[in-house]
Amino acid sequence: MTAPTFANESIVPVSKETKDIAISLRDKAINDDSAYEILKSLTTEVGARHPGTPGEKAGIEWAVSKLKALGFDKVYTEDVEMNGWIRGLETAEILLPSYQKMVITALGRSKSTPEGGLEAEIVHFKSYADLEKAADGSLKGKIAFISNRMQGFKDGSGYGPANIARSKGHELAAQKGAEALLIRSIGTDDHRNPHTGATNVAMGYTAVPAVALSNPDADQLVRLMDYGHIPKIRLNIQTKDLGPIVTKNVFGEITGRELPNEVVVIGGHLDSWDLGTGAVDDGAGVAIAMATAAFIKDNAIIRPRRTIRVILWGAEELGLIGARAYAKARQDDGSIANHVIGSESDFGAGPVYGLQSSSNVSPNAIHVIDTMAGLMGKLGVSRRSGNTTGGPDMIPLSALGVPALNLMQDGTDYFDLHHTPDDTFDKVNPEHMRQNLAVWTVFAFIAAEWPGSFK
Amino acid sequence: MTAPTFANESIVPVSKETKDIAISLRDKAINDDSAYEILKSLTTEVGARHPGTPGEKAGIEWAVSKLKALGFDKVYTEDVEMNGWIRGLETAEILLPSYQKMVITALGRSKSTPEGGLEAEIVHFKSYADLEKAADGSLKGKIAFISNRMQGFKDGSGYGPANIARSKGHELAAQKGAEALLIRSIGTDDHRNPHTGATNVAMGYTAVPAVALSNPDADQLVRLMDYGHIPKIRLNIQTKDLGPIVTKNVFGEITGRELPNEVVVIGGHLDSWDLGTGAVDDGAGVAIAMATAAFIKDNAIIRPRRTIRVILWGAEELGLIGARAYAKARQDDGSIANHVIGSESDFGAGPVYGLQSSSNVSPNAIHVIDTMAGLMGKLGVSRRSGNTTGGPDMIPLSALGVPALNLMQDGTDYFDLHHTPDDTFDKVNPEHMRQNLAVWTVFAFIAAEWPGSFK
Repeated sequence: MTAPTFANESIVPVSKETKDIAISLRDKAINDDSAYEILKSLTTEVGARHPGTPGEKAGIEWAVSKLKALGFDKVYTEDVEMNGWIRGLETAEILLPSYQKMVITALGRSKSTPEGGLEAEIVHFKSYADLEKAADGSLKGKIAFISNRMQGFKDGSGYGPANIARSKGHELAAQKGAEALLIRSIGTDDHRNPHTGATNVAMGYTAVPAVALSNPDADQLVRLMDYGHIPKIRLNIQTKDLGPIVTKNVFGEITGRELPNEVVVIGGHLDSWDLGTGAVDDGAGVAIAMATAAFIKDNAIIRPRRTIRVILWGAEELGLIGARAYAKARQDDGSIANHVIGSESDFGAGPVYGLQSSSNVSPNAIHVIDTMAGLMGKLGVSRRSGNTTGGPDMIPLSALGVPALNLMQDGTDYFDLHHTPDDTFDKVNPEHMRQNLAVWTVFAFIAAEWPGSFK
Repeated sequence: MTAPTFANESIVPVSKETKDIAISLRDKAINDDSAYEILKSLTTEVGARHPGTPGEKAGIEWAVSKLKALGFDKVYTEDVEMNGWIRGLETAEILLPSYQKMVITALGRSKSTPEGGLEAEIVHFKSYADLEKAADGSLKGKIAFISNRMQGFKDGSGYGPANIARSKGHELAAQKGAEALLIRSIGTDDHRNPHTGATNVAMGYTAVPAVALSNPDADQLVRLMDYGHIPKIRLNIQTKDLGPIVTKNVFGEITGRELPNEVVVIGGHLDSWDLGTGAVDDGAGVAIAMATAAFIKDNAIIRPRRTIRVILWGAEELGLIGARAYAKARQDDGSIANHVIGSESDFGAGPVYGLQSSSNVSPNAIHVIDTMAGLMGKLGVSRRSGNTTGGPDMIPLSALGVPALNLMQDGTDYFDLHHTPDDTFDKVNPEHMRQNLAVWTVFAFIAAEWPGSFK
């Protein structure tokens, strides 16, 4: 294969020097445990980081302190206003045909049941689409139960189709007259750990109490109904709307040597659900981004041309709240134009296997992405087609035209852990964290060093 | 290989007819789902079966009703007096260095903490032996934490060495002056599900509150201490001594055609811990024993010579309470002599891979066990050396001289689930249940049909 030639004068090649530095960084990073160690510290010394809790505050303090300790050039935070919500007591029991405790958790912004709980028979729907078919008002005095199971795929493509029950099921259940919504957890495991997650409610409460059962508990209800029983259950959920609170995006920058105002954005979200310690969602992304920028600063023979801005996004889980505020502010002040490219790591701690670019990457810059993928090949990464927003917190920036990459991770076991009490550090493989660091280092270094435009 | 010859006249061969029937039963049972279906019904329609709870009562009613429905010749129960204990509220939080919720459960007969909980720093011991080395009274105002992890082996041999912390740790912690005992769960998984289990206390309460942490939570405490933190925790455990209660052993018999007073005992324990639904511990054993006797009754061309007595033991988890009462009553009335051989299935729902006999099996009967193992060979079972009590609930009978067999199950994943909320029906492989049924059918039929003596 011959080297590409650039007949079009606007195509700027990736220099041999840039490639050599990227290779050297890659081959060192693959033996470096700094991402793993940062993740260990965050998940152990802080734990869960749900907005409006002491854990979130501790997480923000930890991030500022860790970025400073890592020697970032600039470390700062930006406040973001939002509406907080926390869970309290949550219990569920089958009363008939026999007394059994169930393992459940409230979905994000779920309304409380009456104090002491509500008791009702369940009505079974095999999917959200089946619940749609019920007559409006027909479920008075009942609890709607949606039982379909999320399918597991490497790329997580089973998540979207299953997730509508979590997101919008509460509204549909209310429309049908139900007292509450019960869904099978959106998850691929078989453990007595329920999966929480956001609903489509931005402030206030869901239309009816909205609760996820662990997979084994959902199986149990389905089996009971297969035997011909009509389970009666007691559901007691007490939650609290915290009203206005302030979260923060946390920033760490490695200032560019030539184009300090041009920024390459990498990051993960600092908040986590409250049930686990936010290891795979998304301590891993936080750690990978922090470690990548610090690794480049400490190991590249030159400081990259552009600024690498690590953004540890706030309140992703409750609706990309930090990311939306950040993008809006940059749109308002015009600095959105300085965002040359970005990506978020928010799909667990599995190894990267593919590199995807957004459709707004200029044809004149595609060869750079191809070069990155080529250099990542040794790490098991290949160039992939398709479009991308570059991760959840990149969605608002992507929508404003910022080019984005997707460093696709193997998510085979991600939805076993996602949003459960089981999202803890012990699930993370240090070898995979080293691979992520090496892959991200190639991307971030070349993106910050290559002098051409991605747009 | 030539057929064994029996020069010793007291050696009674296994007839060709008996072997042929056993083979025919085996080859039909391997395609029979009755054990799996019985287990499904028990774990789904009843759920957890802890002594002194509505679940136990429902389990006993279910068993009587199911044994009758299966057409057993005699179905009856025997009351056993015991002392009940149940768990109530149980929470634990790390207060320092950061606020984090932990996943814990009280051990059997744990004492309550003061209402509202107790707050104390933890002192870390890597094993029970390390706690033994602490000076008496030296842990005043502290919580003793024993962190060693149970080793996983196919035969469960890691259980005993780890279990002393669960059984006797509370006494040792009290002797050292501690306010409470915290142990890493005796289990081999990595999920946020703690493993409960009995202590060495038969009535009343442990010396101090005694609690098991899930494995990830134990890892978390160890990592915090590795960072140099001294975790302060709040532990709130409310439990209740129920005082005298009555449990039951449940019996189902297939009456022998020639020697109805001679009994082959097979069984599992009907009680379970309260956290899961008692699928692998020991719904599986209950189902295998019930299905085996019913299968022989329904499928053998002759009714076996001796009675097959299925015993569904009560209150095994709290100290073999049903089994001890049964053995004592048979010792007192002399009917112990009629117990020709026995075994309990109580090591999960994995396939049987070995057949072991107790040392009190007569040398003149060893060839029968060898024959059983030979016929089980096609099912993946081989003859094993070593001694056995024939399962936990066989211990009191073994101690009185009743010969016993151990149908050794693959327990590779047993201690992932044992005594946790995760012990649910979805974990059971129907193919393994069919294999168990086939293996147990060979054993029970030959034991009940062969006319010689095992003693």
